[in-house]
Amino acid sequence: MTDWPYLSAASGPGEVTNRTLRDHARQVVNHYDPAFVETFARATDHLKHIFRTAHDIVIPQGEVVLGMEAVAASLFSPGDRVLNLVSGIFGKWFETFIARAGAEPLEVAVPYDQAIDPEDVRRALRRHPDVGFLAVVHAETPSGTVNPVDDICRIASEAGVITIVDTALGLGSHPFEADAWGVDIAVAGPQKALGGVPGLCPIAVSPRAWEAMARRRPTPLRESYLSLLDWRESWVEKRAFPYTASVSLVYALESVAAQVLEVGLERHIARHTRVGRACRAAVRALGLAPWPARDEIACNAVTTVRTPEGLDAGALVARMRRPYGVKISGGYKELAGVTFRLGHMGVSAHPTHLAALLAVLERSLADLGRSVRLGAGVGAAMALLGEWE
Amino acid sequence: MTDWPYLSAASGPGEVTNRTLRDHARQVVNHYDPAFVETFARATDHLKHIFRTAHDIVIPQGEVVLGMEAVAASLFSPGDRVLNLVSGIFGKWFETFIARAGAEPLEVAVPYDQAIDPEDVRRALRRHPDVGFLAVVHAETPSGTVNPVDDICRIASEAGVITIVDTALGLGSHPFEADAWGVDIAVAGPQKALGGVPGLCPIAVSPRAWEAMARRRPTPLRESYLSLLDWRESWVEKRAFPYTASVSLVYALESVAAQVLEVGLERHIARHTRVGRACRAAVRALGLAPWPARDEIACNAVTTVRTPEGLDAGALVARMRRPYGVKISGGYKELAGVTFRLGHMGVSAHPTHLAALLAVLERSLADLGRSVRLGAGVGAAMALLGEWE
Amino acid sequence: MTDWPYLSAASGPGEVTNRTLRDHARQVVNHYDPAFVETFARATDHLKHIFRTAHDIVIPQGEVVLGMEAVAASLFSPGDRVLNLVSGIFGKWFETFIARAGAEPLEVAVPYDQAIDPEDVRRALRRHPDVGFLAVVHAETPSGTVNPVDDICRIASEAGVITIVDTALGLGSHPFEADAWGVDIAVAGPQKALGGVPGLCPIAVSPRAWEAMARRRPTPLRESYLSLLDWRESWVEKRAFPYTASVSLVYALESVAAQVLEVGLERHIARHTRVGRACRAAVRALGLAPWPARDEIACNAVTTVRTPEGLDAGALVARMRRPYGVKISGGYKELAGVTFRLGHMGVSAHPTHLAALLAVLERSLADLGRSVRLGAGVGAAMALLGEWE
Amino acid sequence: MTDWPYLSAASGPGEVTNRTLRDHARQVVNHYDPAFVETFARATDHLKHIFRTAHDIVIPQGEVVLGMEAVAASLFSPGDRVLNLVSGIFGKWFETFIARAGAEPLEVAVPYDQAIDPEDVRRALRRHPDVGFLAVVHAETPSGTVNPVDDICRIASEAGVITIVDTALGLGSHPFEADAWGVDIAVAGPQKALGGVPGLCPIAVSPRAWEAMARRRPTPLRESYLSLLDWRESWVEKRAFPYTASVSLVYALESVAAQVLEVGLERHIARHTRVGRACRAAVRALGLAPWPARDEIACNAVTTVRTPEGLDAGALVARMRRPYGVKISGGYKELAGVTFRLGHMGVSAHPTHLAALLAVLERSLADLGRSVRLGAGVGAAMALLGEWE
Repeated sequence: MTDWPYLSAASGPGEVTNRTLRDHARQVVNHYDPAFVETFARATDHLKHIFRTAHDIVIPQGEVVLGMEAVAASLFSPGDRVLNLVSGIFGKWFETFIARAGAEPLEVAVPYDQAIDPEDVRRALRRHPDVGFLAVVHAETPSGTVNPVDDICRIASEAGVITIVDTALGLGSHPFEADAWGVDIAVAGPQKALGGVPGLCPIAVSPRAWEAMARRRPTPLRESYLSLLDWRESWVEKRAFPYTASVSLVYALESVAAQVLEVGLERHIARHTRVGRACRAAVRALGLAPWPARDEIACNAVTTVRTPEGLDAGALVARMRRPYGVKISGGYKELAGVTFRLGHMGVSAHPTHLAALLAVLERSLADLGRSVRLGAGVGAAMALLGEWE
Repeated sequence: MTDWPYLSAASGPGEVTNRTLRDHARQVVNHYDPAFVETFARATDHLKHIFRTAHDIVIPQGEVVLGMEAVAASLFSPGDRVLNLVSGIFGKWFETFIARAGAEPLEVAVPYDQAIDPEDVRRALRRHPDVGFLAVVHAETPSGTVNPVDDICRIASEAGVITIVDTALGLGSHPFEADAWGVDIAVAGPQKALGGVPGLCPIAVSPRAWEAMARRRPTPLRESYLSLLDWRESWVEKRAFPYTASVSLVYALESVAAQVLEVGLERHIARHTRVGRACRAAVRALGLAPWPARDEIACNAVTTVRTPEGLDAGALVARMRRPYGVKISGGYKELAGVTFRLGHMGVSAHPTHLAALLAVLERSLADLGRSVRLGAGVGAAMALLGEWE
Repeated sequence: MTDWPYLSAASGPGEVTNRTLRDHARQVVNHYDPAFVETFARATDHLKHIFRTAHDIVIPQGEVVLGMEAVAASLFSPGDRVLNLVSGIFGKWFETFIARAGAEPLEVAVPYDQAIDPEDVRRALRRHPDVGFLAVVHAETPSGTVNPVDDICRIASEAGVITIVDTALGLGSHPFEADAWGVDIAVAGPQKALGGVPGLCPIAVSPRAWEAMARRRPTPLRESYLSLLDWRESWVEKRAFPYTASVSLVYALESVAAQVLEVGLERHIARHTRVGRACRAAVRALGLAPWPARDEIACNAVTTVRTPEGLDAGALVARMRRPYGVKISGGYKELAGVTFRLGHMGVSAHPTHLAALLAVLERSLADLGRSVRLGAGVGAAMALLGEWE
Repeated sequence: MTDWPYLSAASGPGEVTNRTLRDHARQVVNHYDPAFVETFARATDHLKHIFRTAHDIVIPQGEVVLGMEAVAASLFSPGDRVLNLVSGIFGKWFETFIARAGAEPLEVAVPYDQAIDPEDVRRALRRHPDVGFLAVVHAETPSGTVNPVDDICRIASEAGVITIVDTALGLGSHPFEADAWGVDIAVAGPQKALGGVPGLCPIAVSPRAWEAMARRRPTPLRESYLSLLDWRESWVEKRAFPYTASVSLVYALESVAAQVLEVGLERHIARHTRVGRACRAAVRALGLAPWPARDEIACNAVTTVRTPEGLDAGALVARMRRPYGVKISGGYKELAGVTFRLGHMGVSAHPTHLAALLAVLERSLADLGRSVRLGAGVGAAMALLGEWE
């Protein structure tokens, strides 16, 4: 039996705090127990502050992918045209869901080390005035890149287009303002920058999005695990559930959301900003290159690194894990081999975690025969992490 | 803030052991960490023993309802005819999924306090030789009844029909033999008689069922949260995941499955048998009547009770919860008001749990003005629970 | 390997809440970490409210017996005369510590099913005006009896005698007022009626007691695990520790003390009062007799039962534990065989716990051939537990 | 309320594994529950392997200091002469306990950055043939130094002297062989190199030591928290306890002892050896000096560092803790100010922990105005930690 890792520094799920684990281990109760219903309500209240929305939060009881598929299934009908922004693998993936719903995807795409240009969005919307929906990934986990969701959603929103943002990785690691930016649907996950446990998919939904699901469609989707309306009719309207809730995951979600708010959302994001920057500085100090084309579009929670000539990314991942006990991620799908990924999210967006990760990265690169000055990456990172808050 | 309950005796999720909670609280890791992959594999191995199957186990990462919808979405195509056996609310619910998949449901139905007669199934299959699938609920959580799944599936299987069993409540509380009985798809949940944490949906799939999903359908369902084939192509074939796994729920599932096998599956079921019988004896001793028409079709994990004349079931549920801290369930949907439900599942299929539940039931009935000899129900139950094993 | 019990109903340690276990499982830190020092301070603040004292709390890091020995070692010198009140085994035990300190024990004793009469104390103090100290056990765990500590300490205090109370079992299950009653030293334990984890020994100390330790003795005891003065000089004066603190036990203590105060101390005690009375009623309904000579002197947290003619107490303890998974206690030392003990303390001072315990007691008595109407004890208990608060 | 630390790198207690925390959180049971008695027995069995003894293990339920005082109180009588080896503050402290027992301490002392020379012991024993006991600290927590306990105890043992070793910090971080080296009494603690939870004090006792306690003393110490004989008469002989056991601490102790043995004791020690060496290399690379006079006598679990000219050790400790969340220890008593201490013990004897600690040390030194090349210490350490096992 393989030993458990000493440090999780993968692209997610990340490590969680001891407090989260303890809150997670509360005795399981029936989901209609009043104490649980109150806990669920507290979770959604906390999440409103984190999504920066005054509207509704629903929480399908499955992974983020469920949320994205549910959004497509709940929102799109045959004949709908959806402007899908593709700057990475997750963005591209959403086309599957658009197509399954019978809608037509239109694409604005950039290479996967780039970010979407809001002006391209503006142009595309002008060219296709019948587009009803726009979908964009806030932060791409495979590429470690970030899109300018604020400008994109403002443009789309002004054009009367319903906006859908996958902010699974972005929420908590980059500024995000659902209402102020005109985001109609924002899909998140607890297990990335919020520092939580995987298995739930909190979604913020605007009145306009509810309207589109309930009225614009000929047959609104109901009585399905993919139905967001089921959640509105049960949770939002009646504090009920469409099916059995994942009780202990909700304990953990309520806990991590409370912890983020106790730290302060801005400070929580600022920690990611600083650690992300420090990690990229370390990567460069080790003679490696971050995958994103420019620093301004780099994600603060996951650093995707270009695999240098002569290095086997899989061997690096394996070496860090054994014998050093540090789990990082290799590249995902098309980016397998050409990239590997360092995670620093949630509670792990911290100098101690980053230093440990980088020290083992350096050591493992040396073990694999790369010329590395041990400590160079850690030093470069720590130079940027003074006066930590 | 409402206090947490002292005792969970609802229709599920039930209480879990301290060991399960502790295993659940293992630090979260990336789902591709080798230690986690081994844990997931152990969970599926345990489950093969519990389902009594030599075939495959997949575990969609959501509640049982996800599993049932996924089965329908993965298996049925327009033109398919599905014999749907309806002896309760959950059986009826499945029609929605049949219809959404474009298939045609044929129904064999009985009143909700009855069980399906296998001979009716035989007759229906003869009458409709083009039926390709049969669906049946092993144990109905709302009614607290059990269907003779062994005979039903044998009949259907011999007729070349693919059989689908919802054994969310049955698995662990009643005998179940997937392979021996000709069950092609069995859908379970950890949070009932297995004594686990809600949020996952283990499914046993026969080769014949895989064949039907992959070959018989014009377009096999892939790249969807509802796709079982995605799980075959990822987990079964490559020890990979179609999406991020609910890591900590898998810890708990592996743990409860191991605990069931350590107790011994037969002994685990026998405990439910004895506690179920004892609970019904107690109910009768209190002048109440179990909902199932006959004792032989009563479920061993949930006792559904007919609300007697003059009792407000909702008031009883509320009274037991406050001030006594015991959570039971009211009736579900059509059975609301006319029934209430006592849960005794998983670790709670035990004399101590049952005695506590019944003592508070008696006390609360008395508080609500019913004439009850305090201790009568407990005594009747304990009379049947000597020589506990 | 023996299975763990389903229910702990012994004379202590008792079961603890899921919240206590979770708080207990906080990551261990160095005892001088500022967050820990604050936690320790919160624990002592909570305990002042529970002891009803405005004076000091110290917490030797060991079991209650350590506390009692430390009190004797810290307080008594050769030549001192100590009036030791003996109504049970623990009271008698204290003589060992008095003697080891070189002091002379004078005894007021009653049979172990009786309580001390305060007038006997008054008489003894008149007879022996040179007595400097009085020691009394609030609630005797072996006998399940309670002494009138209020009157005893008032009488002694007025006589200028320093009073020492072992309230390990009494604190939380019976009223206790350190300052109002003139208690100079009160020794408790977390693991009984406070519902906590064993291994610590909170002690309330009055200024008069400190004075006696520091000034009256020719050589105050310092630099010893038995020294209370070490704790005053370190914790009370400097928020320091005389040795490494049992960090995780302090987490648990702070948690249970907070939980008692959240419930409300009076309500917490009232729960014990009602459950104790209900347990004795059940014992009588089963044809058994509580050990205490009269109900007014019975302890509310432990019911000591006289073993009836023809019953083997050890066989009963064994039978309840296996196969039924309920741990009760046999008799202690001189009371072995002639008594057995039922615990209902802390979180277990609750109708559900009591009903489960009694149902298994009845069942086991029947198994051992006693004539018992199953349910009779539970019914008698529940008759007294309506309108639980 | 102060935030909890991110990393504990103090002189102990150290961090514990997630598994230890989970095992620690098992429901509390009565200490005479058979499952608990078995757990206690497993703990003592594991400890025999760790102490390398075939003799008895007893576990007084308190901190290491309790153990040392109990040894003195149980073993020494007026007239006894005890050769006390003093190479640090803890060694010196033991004189208090020798004197309180009425025995006479003879001292072999060296400066606190040195280790005892076994030849000095030989000479002292020749000079004082009436010495009956020898006491030595294996590893001094304040100084971070190690004594050659193997040679010292062999010499003393051959001279017929009963040997007492405080190996609280040494056990698990340096080789230790109770039986092979002639150690009669070895006192340990779970919370240092074993990676456990503080509050217990496992002691290995040889038959010769038991003999000395029981026969050589005019009045053997019994019925005291300080009595080791009580433990022999209860635990060793009857699997009973002299007082209530600290149940949950025993859960944790059994767990950490099992974990050490699963890793393998030699490998566990080797990890400390490598990490200790790496830490000292890092300290030197940062222009600092380890406190021990030579590397061969440096402790592998705690690195005591000489505070350099111009640095305020207290300010460094405070700075690392806030804002960086890393808790180290300042100097202890006489060594306050002139030293500070870095802990790397138990689970924290690992490259990730060390790198994180050193990175924050470097950063904090820089913050305080020291000239430090960030990364230099980490690099020096990691250079020695390749091929980690």
